Amino acid sequence: MSVTPYQQLEQEFRRLHAFRGALSMLRWDAAVMMPRGSADVRGEQLAALETEHHALLTTPKVARLLERAEAGASQLDDWSIANLREMRRQRDHAIATPPSLIARLAKATARAEVFWVEARKTNDFKLFAPYLEEVVHLVRDKAALLGQARGLAPYDALVDVFTPGISTADIDTIFKALSRKLPGLINAAIEVQADRAPAPLTGKFTVARQRQLSVEVLKALGFPFDRGRLDESEHPFTEGVPGDIRVTTRFDLIDPFSGLLGAVHETGHAMYDLGLPQQWRDQPVGRDRGLALEESQSLLFEMNICRSRAFVKYLRPLLEKHLQVNGPEWSEENLYRHLVRVRRSLIRMDADELTYPAHIMLRYELERKILEGALPVKDLPEAWNANLYQRLGIRPSNDVEGCLQDIHWAVGHFGYFPSYALGAVIAGQLNEAMRTARPSLDEEIALGQFGGIMEWLRDNVHGVGARLPVKDLIQEATGKPLTAAAYLRYLETKYLEAP
Amino acid sequence: MSVTPYQQLEQEFRRLHAFRGALSMLRWDAAVMMPRGSADVRGEQLAALETEHHALLTTPKVARLLERAEAGASQLDDWSIANLREMRRQRDHAIATPPSLIARLAKATARAEVFWVEARKTNDFKLFAPYLEEVVHLVRDKAALLGQARGLAPYDALVDVFTPGISTADIDTIFKALSRKLPGLINAAIEVQADRAPAPLTGKFTVARQRQLSVEVLKALGFPFDRGRLDESEHPFTEGVPGDIRVTTRFDLIDPFSGLLGAVHETGHAMYDLGLPQQWRDQPVGRDRGLALEESQSLLFEMNICRSRAFVKYLRPLLEKHLQVNGPEWSEENLYRHLVRVRRSLIRMDADELTYPAHIMLRYELERKILEGALPVKDLPEAWNANLYQRLGIRPSNDVEGCLQDIHWAVGHFGYFPSYALGAVIAGQLNEAMRTARPSLDEEIALGQFGGIMEWLRDNVHGVGARLPVKDLIQEATGKPLTAAAYLRYLETKYLEAP
Repeated sequence: MSVTPYQQLEQEFRRLHAFRGALSMLRWDAAVMMPRGSADVRGEQLAALETEHHALLTTPKVARLLERAEAGASQLDDWSIANLREMRRQRDHAIATPPSLIARLAKATARAEVFWVEARKTNDFKLFAPYLEEVVHLVRDKAALLGQARGLAPYDALVDVFTPGISTADIDTIFKALSRKLPGLINAAIEVQADRAPAPLTGKFTVARQRQLSVEVLKALGFPFDRGRLDESEHPFTEGVPGDIRVTTRFDLIDPFSGLLGAVHETGHAMYDLGLPQQWRDQPVGRDRGLALEESQSLLFEMNICRSRAFVKYLRPLLEKHLQVNGPEWSEENLYRHLVRVRRSLIRMDADELTYPAHIMLRYELERKILEGALPVKDLPEAWNANLYQRLGIRPSNDVEGCLQDIHWAVGHFGYFPSYALGAVIAGQLNEAMRTARPSLDEEIALGQFGGIMEWLRDNVHGVGARLPVKDLIQEATGKPLTAAAYLRYLETKYLEAP
Repeated sequence: MSVTPYQQLEQEFRRLHAFRGALSMLRWDAAVMMPRGSADVRGEQLAALETEHHALLTTPKVARLLERAEAGASQLDDWSIANLREMRRQRDHAIATPPSLIARLAKATARAEVFWVEARKTNDFKLFAPYLEEVVHLVRDKAALLGQARGLAPYDALVDVFTPGISTADIDTIFKALSRKLPGLINAAIEVQADRAPAPLTGKFTVARQRQLSVEVLKALGFPFDRGRLDESEHPFTEGVPGDIRVTTRFDLIDPFSGLLGAVHETGHAMYDLGLPQQWRDQPVGRDRGLALEESQSLLFEMNICRSRAFVKYLRPLLEKHLQVNGPEWSEENLYRHLVRVRRSLIRMDADELTYPAHIMLRYELERKILEGALPVKDLPEAWNANLYQRLGIRPSNDVEGCLQDIHWAVGHFGYFPSYALGAVIAGQLNEAMRTARPSLDEEIALGQFGGIMEWLRDNVHGVGARLPVKDLIQEATGKPLTAAAYLRYLETKYLEAP
């Protein structure tokens, strides 16, 4: 009958899980359903729930229970020990970021976001700079406090928030490998594609038809429409919890791919969440293993699985059925050319698979310098443009196309960007291992049979939850340590193949 | 700089207000957007937030602050004193219903609801009876505890939860007046209408067209679509907070009125919420004055304003515009006959304005007897049928049309039903006062100009919030004590008018 400290902790975190789910629904609603004028009211609700979540996580009671449970950890099984470790991690993060700092950051970022929007309107970085400076100061404080709490260098501590278990040393090693190979690969791919420009896809495709197409593809992927939704929003995203998972996309009336691939990308996130260990679904160890792994799942779906010849074989008849298109430009070969086209572009969000990592590495390099104080905020535009030119040989003509393009820094997300490129690298390595384990994968994809993929991912990635650190998870899933090698092999094969 | 106990309380209740808003949104989502399979997950989220709301309201800190603020109340203005009184009321209610009792009630009602559904399927009250019995036991406990806390008789304490300031003595007086007059009035009305049966309205009206019609009417009424939404759900309801208010309705493809009038009814609730004192919007005194007054607003809109000859004048061209109908059956006279048709029916939800109170008085009488133990649950069907026969001269042929028709008792809502009829009585009295103050009201309605009505309601009802007890509010708004007189005058004029 007596309840152990560990069991009491499970009870506490069950409640926190419900709070997180409620917060996620309120964010979903704000982006998809909420009337335009209601943002202030919603802001108050989110703040109240977040504050309470923070308070519940940082009570002395939780601290005492953690100590007592840790003292008796030898009695627990592996999953419970991992769960306890994740509870400790969450609590240490929360304690290290006191409500006063969170409140100051919330105010500073709200202000910075307003001036980021203004600066973009007038193409005037100087308008934004002082507010970004303020955010940087506060993020530095946060990084120092988190670093102390977790025994990490400040920037490492920020990365650890988003992708636990990955250090700057890991990132540096991987990004160095990418920097060595990618420029040559980009040049070569552009050359290979030079005489294979795809014929344009003309036509107008209603939202209703594109939605039908997306729903059919998502159903094939396994998205559970009885416990999930597909809606539209300004930018695609995934919210919710396993059991009520909601993805969004944005349909473009003249581009039949962007809405579909947005939905598929988010379904990668959703299927990860759905595959998390059911038994631990309301506990910290039952959560995803951080942002890089989340992004690996969405990119695996979008890039490795769907931007492939096999997927085009499956997709072409569906385009005919739902969008009622035909003609030579809708041939498999032409569609595939659209999906893998490489072009150097100024905007990260428009970048293709091959040039995307350059945009991330630029941001990683600059945000570290900014936080270390090695790069004053006022010098950011120049540093940005020089860095992009060095990486891709192109130069923004203004800051809207340059250092004002992303919202992340304005809202205080430093240490976030690397996870995008790490996700692609992890996806590459998982893709290779999965294809070794299932040699007939391309045939399955061409037939629209994704059950085998889901099974492999559930067994090797999703079902692990947060039981292992990222690197151990990759090692167990693929039999190899996390490196950029498989990812680079995948890119080479895909983009340098003979015509 | 120093913060008074009262100011600290305002801060605490601001947070509770945000919790209530979040809970309301999660309920809205559950009824309108949530995938079917996600009810379990949502249940956990609602329970966690409700539990926390209860915990925050019942902390010793709040108790101490209340005592200190009450000791210094002479320093406060009227609004703050009323606010303090409402804070006390909320806190006493919460303290009187301990989490263990709430949890037992939640379980018992969840079970009872399941067997209510089952019993309806098989028309077998006996299936449901033991579970209703269990709910009754727990509601009795709750009523006793609430009564002790508030110094009220047990049933009065339940009524007080929904409609503060109204006692069973008040209800008895009003219901006695209704019982005296209504049977004769119903007979007379049916006789008057005997040779005025409306010609049927034929046709099929798509949801899209009916929605357009409703949106145009709601806009005219003042519903703010930039801070609110109109959606569809199984039953019409209103959720949200001022600043993000959401009404729903249900469109019937062959009945052009039910969807529209459902939306109008809910807009009555919404306009009340929107008119609450802005300055106090996140405080207890800034809330609505309970269920009877809420219902008075929805009924005022639906019955007094919209089921009128003046409104039909405004509506007819809109029906033509949106539903593209014409022909003699769409004449003002015929439409009006549809809107005021009196028929004795077995089902409360289908009842017209004139017979509706009989259904409520039946439930009021029986639920009091059940709680007092004077009527055993097993004898409910017989008592129901006899009571209905006595009131309306009709008799259900089975319990699905009888005592199994409403969900309220299964989910533990005792003391709730009277507010429906009280709402109608209050609406009648407000309607009379408003028409005295604005003699040209019918001309305004016929022109679709509802600004004057809203202004009067805001000045006299909405803007008062919870500053006054219901009876004082009615006295101030109408210059008369709350009685059934104006309501009965209104019904007589409307239903006995010369053809």
